[in-house]
Amino acid sequence: MKVGFIGLGAMGRAMAENLVRAGHELVAYNRTRERAESLPGVAAIANTPAEAARGAEAVLTMLADDQALEAVAFGEAGFLPALAPGAVHVSSSTISVALAERLTQAHAERGQRFVAAPVFGRPEAAQQAKLFVVAAGEHAAIADCRPVFDAIGQKTFAVGEEPRMASAVKLGGNFLIANVIESMAEAVALIRKHGVDPEKFLDLLTSTLFSAPVYKTYGGKVARDEYQPVGFKMPLGLKDIRLTLAAAETVRVPMPVAAVIRDHMIAALAQGMENADWSAFARIVARNAGLDGD
Amino acid sequence: MKVGFIGLGAMGRAMAENLVRAGHELVAYNRTRERAESLPGVAAIANTPAEAARGAEAVLTMLADDQALEAVAFGEAGFLPALAPGAVHVSSSTISVALAERLTQAHAERGQRFVAAPVFGRPEAAQQAKLFVVAAGEHAAIADCRPVFDAIGQKTFAVGEEPRMASAVKLGGNFLIANVIESMAEAVALIRKHGVDPEKFLDLLTSTLFSAPVYKTYGGKVARDEYQPVGFKMPLGLKDIRLTLAAAETVRVPMPVAAVIRDHMIAALAQGMENADWSAFARIVARNAGLDGD
Amino acid sequence: MKVGFIGLGAMGRAMAENLVRAGHELVAYNRTRERAESLPGVAAIANTPAEAARGAEAVLTMLADDQALEAVAFGEAGFLPALAPGAVHVSSSTISVALAERLTQAHAERGQRFVAAPVFGRPEAAQQAKLFVVAAGEHAAIADCRPVFDAIGQKTFAVGEEPRMASAVKLGGNFLIANVIESMAEAVALIRKHGVDPEKFLDLLTSTLFSAPVYKTYGGKVARDEYQPVGFKMPLGLKDIRLTLAAAETVRVPMPVAAVIRDHMIAALAQGMENADWSAFARIVARNAGLDGD
Amino acid sequence: MKVGFIGLGAMGRAMAENLVRAGHELVAYNRTRERAESLPGVAAIANTPAEAARGAEAVLTMLADDQALEAVAFGEAGFLPALAPGAVHVSSSTISVALAERLTQAHAERGQRFVAAPVFGRPEAAQQAKLFVVAAGEHAAIADCRPVFDAIGQKTFAVGEEPRMASAVKLGGNFLIANVIESMAEAVALIRKHGVDPEKFLDLLTSTLFSAPVYKTYGGKVARDEYQPVGFKMPLGLKDIRLTLAAAETVRVPMPVAAVIRDHMIAALAQGMENADWSAFARIVARNAGLDGD
Repeated sequence: MKVGFIGLGAMGRAMAENLVRAGHELVAYNRTRERAESLPGVAAIANTPAEAARGAEAVLTMLADDQALEAVAFGEAGFLPALAPGAVHVSSSTISVALAERLTQAHAERGQRFVAAPVFGRPEAAQQAKLFVVAAGEHAAIADCRPVFDAIGQKTFAVGEEPRMASAVKLGGNFLIANVIESMAEAVALIRKHGVDPEKFLDLLTSTLFSAPVYKTYGGKVARDEYQPVGFKMPLGLKDIRLTLAAAETVRVPMPVAAVIRDHMIAALAQGMENADWSAFARIVARNAGLDGD
Repeated sequence: MKVGFIGLGAMGRAMAENLVRAGHELVAYNRTRERAESLPGVAAIANTPAEAARGAEAVLTMLADDQALEAVAFGEAGFLPALAPGAVHVSSSTISVALAERLTQAHAERGQRFVAAPVFGRPEAAQQAKLFVVAAGEHAAIADCRPVFDAIGQKTFAVGEEPRMASAVKLGGNFLIANVIESMAEAVALIRKHGVDPEKFLDLLTSTLFSAPVYKTYGGKVARDEYQPVGFKMPLGLKDIRLTLAAAETVRVPMPVAAVIRDHMIAALAQGMENADWSAFARIVARNAGLDGD
Repeated sequence: MKVGFIGLGAMGRAMAENLVRAGHELVAYNRTRERAESLPGVAAIANTPAEAARGAEAVLTMLADDQALEAVAFGEAGFLPALAPGAVHVSSSTISVALAERLTQAHAERGQRFVAAPVFGRPEAAQQAKLFVVAAGEHAAIADCRPVFDAIGQKTFAVGEEPRMASAVKLGGNFLIANVIESMAEAVALIRKHGVDPEKFLDLLTSTLFSAPVYKTYGGKVARDEYQPVGFKMPLGLKDIRLTLAAAETVRVPMPVAAVIRDHMIAALAQGMENADWSAFARIVARNAGLDGD
Repeated sequence: MKVGFIGLGAMGRAMAENLVRAGHELVAYNRTRERAESLPGVAAIANTPAEAARGAEAVLTMLADDQALEAVAFGEAGFLPALAPGAVHVSSSTISVALAERLTQAHAERGQRFVAAPVFGRPEAAQQAKLFVVAAGEHAAIADCRPVFDAIGQKTFAVGEEPRMASAVKLGGNFLIANVIESMAEAVALIRKHGVDPEKFLDLLTSTLFSAPVYKTYGGKVARDEYQPVGFKMPLGLKDIRLTLAAAETVRVPMPVAAVIRDHMIAALAQGMENADWSAFARIVARNAGLDGD
């Protein structure tokens, strides 16, 4: 497919490379142009978001937050007016439910189609085309984007016809990951202070009821009190939980555990962890228990 | 081995049957004698806890709570004075860290040995000898009990030399299970109110990052809003969380998520769920979001 | 003073009447013009926010939320471009710290002055000119507005030179009021279920350590389980707590009790209390305890 | 009246002195006898709790916790068997609802009467006979104890006929005091990090809606970040919140804010505040916000 690709951060670049590899024709746009230029096999470099969208069957956006996506869509030289009627905007970053709704309406007004398709997976998974894609939008639009999804991920889940449903699912999933960190931090503090070796505890858990990748990776970080490398920074983690709580408030759902996690992330930032991996908020749980990481 | 077996509830009976099946010689005691009499292959029925312990190499206790264990150990005709020096008391129910310490000392004073060996698994797992055993106590004592553990479980984890360490690990594990219920309840409320099918959400989770048994079973209950059959009643669930919080307080560990779960369980009891399965506290989360189970 | 007055809701109208009574010359603007027309002694009715500001020494805004204030300030025929250099904008409604900062900058760019001066007090207090004014901004600007503050309130507290400081203080205060409701709801549920008469409990508290107006009024509502009349609706209460949490997040302050209150307000909205007084979220606390209001 | 007085800590001693001053005949018992000997005007020193009760019309107990009261009542040479039928036991310390019930029954079985009469006030208030007495028990028993209550306090509140009701009220009240500390700590962190002077904030609050002693004293500690002198140590504060949560659990009442406070007190103990005044848990709130006390 002819794809305009906007946003070449760690995740976006890996996804773009896989699209090129799968034979798609990419016109890439990135705020700092060099990142686009270094993309192997790219068909063209766009000077503006609008240029990336012109003539494309699909525009895929992979940006840090709502503000960044709003800027490339609605801002100066934004892609919204440039995208052809019938073409699809695929938004793969984690965005708010509110922005998903705004985009749904804005695209509909122009006869364009919108699919929210956020992904689960860290940069390594993106490189290996092993992402999980959560897609929501009209059936036909999702079907038309299949070749794109197949190039970047190992499996696509269609969760509904309203794009915001994919946002809700992605945010719900991110909350569940954060919750694994929080709950492991609490349980590990408990057993550590009773003298139990956290690695033994983790081994017990992950070889029995909790034999899931998320307990192995994040549980491992907590058990070893080691939050390297930094894949996703604390402020981005907090942003996701903030979006989760906002998505929940919109439909009147209290999420008390999400609120606990939010408080721990804020404490982490207050205590100097701006550049730490988001999972390091587990240290706040440990500190509150009088355990110190270093 | 010659084993005194005390406590023939759903879990205990299944474990006792497996011990008999594995060739151990059982003297069984249960408060209501009939449950002991109907145990196939039992060597003898004891009239008192003390009788069950007399001449045994090991006494295994599997009782509902601390009070029940205290009664058979320290109470009238309790087994403590009757157990031979060198013999082992294996406590397989979930008990408080405080009781684990009290028993450790009481047995030591009599030259007896004490192994805390709580188990993970619901009654079906017990029937199939598929429990996971978490053992703590002196190495030699644990080694001597291996034949017992092998008869009731699929794997034994030795987590330390102080019996209370097994209590802490078991309570930490139970908290993590309760946490799966709580976090799934919050996430499912979020996506349901955004119009997403909970079964699709669950399928997505359990076929990706959350592919662990605990998400399939408990997550399934939450996604289907179906808390049958009742394997473990609400008051027992609350008791476990209460013991977790007490074990954490003893060593000065705040566990805010455990506190959230405790509140939801108390609300469940306040709203008439005395006889519901403990996992049904997820309904409180749903009710707070304006979703009603029925 | 020559004052442009924008926003004639229950609070605004009472304040405007007191300004007229104190001899100020008012040009009033309200979205629905009738409310402005019925104001006794008003000098003129403005057709647009801009008209209200033209020639005024001060513009006072008293609006429902950030959006409403943004509309009259920055929107079509907004007052921002119409206000003379040197004139003061006094914002008396509860606004976000973010909007306080945006206004500070926007006014500074035009050589105008900005004072955030939110008020404590319900409509009856406003009618009796008994509000408490919390002012922040340049000393001289606050001094110039004294006649306005004296006309509407019984006392003015200058809390700092940055307007956002008044927002933070007002939000902190509102949180403390909400906290009185929450904590009284928890304590009353406790003693009610132990058979104690809530009125007796309230009398004991308010005639001893808790002899403050806020315990008498809000504590009284909780003790009597009576949340009439509706002075301030639930969604506005939730908005205030949301702004508090946002103001706290901006400066990295976790506020776990504010988060608990937020959850109870969301639950209240989920359970149909859209039109209830904001203090009625105490009913959620009671419901969770199995107590039912009716 | 002829009063056996048991427990001469800071509070107890001050109360005993006031009883002597009011003309009551005191037989005093204290675990460390010297504290009893130095009491001016005491009629006799008892060697055991039983001796203090023999011949007394009333026994008043003022002890650190449940365990201490259980020891002097039910333990060796305890006062329970020594107290005459018809005589009254007045328990003035903060005890659990469970112990209140146990004592109610134990005294009834012996034809004795039991009044729970915990007090509000710190040691200085006790010295000045300015305590507030919360009494529960049979009307006649309370009436008979009036001379005692009048000698130690400024006002007595009769809250019900079941002694445990006084425990519930006292615990509810203590929770409300702890809540003032918690909520002030959150609000002060918010405004401090926005650059507002906490003393100004406190002044504003206590001269308006929050003009109650508890905001002045505890709010003052928080605003000044000064938790001296140590009137009541952290572990005792935690004990009270633990009893509150237990009293609430008994009657199925979730108290999420009490749970937040409990976590902060546990964190305070984990971080070395064993000997700090209980109100110093406010520092945990500040630390979590990146503010450091020193």
